[in-house]
Amino acid sequence: MSPKRISYLGPEGTFTDQACHVYAPKDWERVGFSEMHNVVGALVNGDVDEAIVPIENSVGGSVIDITDFLVKTPDVQIRGEMLLGIEQCLIAHSGVELSEIKVVRSKPEALSQCREFLDTHIPNAARVGTASTVEAVYRVKSESREVAAVGPRRAADLADLPIIREGIQDRQNNVTRFVILASTDHEATGSDKTSIVFSFMNRDTPGQLYKALEPFARRNINLTKIESRPAGDELGNYVFLLDFVGHRTDPGVKETLEGLRDFAPLVKVLGSYPVSTEVC
Amino acid sequence: MSPKRISYLGPEGTFTDQACHVYAPKDWERVGFSEMHNVVGALVNGDVDEAIVPIENSVGGSVIDITDFLVKTPDVQIRGEMLLGIEQCLIAHSGVELSEIKVVRSKPEALSQCREFLDTHIPNAARVGTASTVEAVYRVKSESREVAAVGPRRAADLADLPIIREGIQDRQNNVTRFVILASTDHEATGSDKTSIVFSFMNRDTPGQLYKALEPFARRNINLTKIESRPAGDELGNYVFLLDFVGHRTDPGVKETLEGLRDFAPLVKVLGSYPVSTEVC
Repeated sequence: MSPKRISYLGPEGTFTDQACHVYAPKDWERVGFSEMHNVVGALVNGDVDEAIVPIENSVGGSVIDITDFLVKTPDVQIRGEMLLGIEQCLIAHSGVELSEIKVVRSKPEALSQCREFLDTHIPNAARVGTASTVEAVYRVKSESREVAAVGPRRAADLADLPIIREGIQDRQNNVTRFVILASTDHEATGSDKTSIVFSFMNRDTPGQLYKALEPFARRNINLTKIESRPAGDELGNYVFLLDFVGHRTDPGVKETLEGLRDFAPLVKVLGSYPVSTEVC
Repeated sequence: MSPKRISYLGPEGTFTDQACHVYAPKDWERVGFSEMHNVVGALVNGDVDEAIVPIENSVGGSVIDITDFLVKTPDVQIRGEMLLGIEQCLIAHSGVELSEIKVVRSKPEALSQCREFLDTHIPNAARVGTASTVEAVYRVKSESREVAAVGPRRAADLADLPIIREGIQDRQNNVTRFVILASTDHEATGSDKTSIVFSFMNRDTPGQLYKALEPFARRNINLTKIESRPAGDELGNYVFLLDFVGHRTDPGVKETLEGLRDFAPLVKVLGSYPVSTEVC
């Protein structure tokens, strides 16, 4: 592939930056934006060729805002997926012992993910919230050896600070699923997945979701994800997000989607793309 | 009801504090904790009678960590639900005009929710992230008139600061669903909902979700929410969260759950509780 431009949800040093770093060849230009709106906007405007965004976390569930963007933005499709192992690291000055640490800073959600480690190993350190993990890591540089941060490996690399302990999050095997967005999805490879969104006119008809799944079951199409989402108009006006095995150009998948359109007025294919099973 | 104690995810001034304030009678003691672990822990230990936690947001989707706690914590059941309208407010010193504001602080997620308002009305104000909306609001008090914050009405009340503009979030009708937790769920009232979690032994059998929904469809039991969730062990090892209309003691619901247990090794009833439709 010739060098391309790819946008990601920044700033530098986040897990999404790390995923982009792993995914994109060295000669690609990586462009970070602080708002999802701009990450996808750059793709729609043609300023970048691809975008990489987190879509699902084995601990944190769906990354909801991003799914909303996909539903609302035409001309953007999913053309790939990537699994990244999420490891929170304790980052401090060189040679710092756990017993020296009096303050640990990070985004409150990251501190919460590492509660067991912090309770066990540095129970007396004050936990102080910051707006981002990256801010917490950079602030360590200008402070005394008593201050540490919780954040991604890539933030430590960028700040040129050592990692004192790695993998300190309570739940191991914390994997985030990222998707690669572009103006078109991926051609069929023989081992593909498809993501769709659909909704019904009337949510109060019992059994309509059951009926919608029948054509998938009949053709032995394996569902890998299902989620009902409030549509935002009022709580309870739901849309359904579905991932399943197969490419949208497979004859059985085409028939299934046509059948679904008969009774679901909204059916949007978000894209077909090769299945990824390796965790980076 | 005699006065009781209720725990909530604090600190004071958050939307959960606001929901607790609306839900709990005036003479109840409200106890805020900064970690979900402690909110539920207080209930398990008998230190409080009830707990109130956010479970679903019409913009933000499921509040995932809390669902995880419910799945993992025996002896805690859902005994009620409550819908709270979420309005972000622009909070500043008395009489401040939008044109005076040079800095707006809030949690990055709240700033992002109000992007259109900020872009349109105070495009030149710097947006600065804080660890919480409450921190942003309290910092306004000690700063010049050029500094504002985005946060809940209750934070403005507690800080004794005026609301300059209300309802500034991009998406209107932003409703968060809270659940009331206790050691037992609610007796049947005739208009009830039940929340359950279930999972299969082998996720790769096509059609098993379809089969699981058949008994619900056959008895005309209306599903109000469905979500597959990675179980955390590895991405793709899913559990299903289901909300449906009816009480677990209804004969048709009992039969349905017994049928589900025949092929889903894990079926956990999180609780039955009266349906709530009014938005507070």
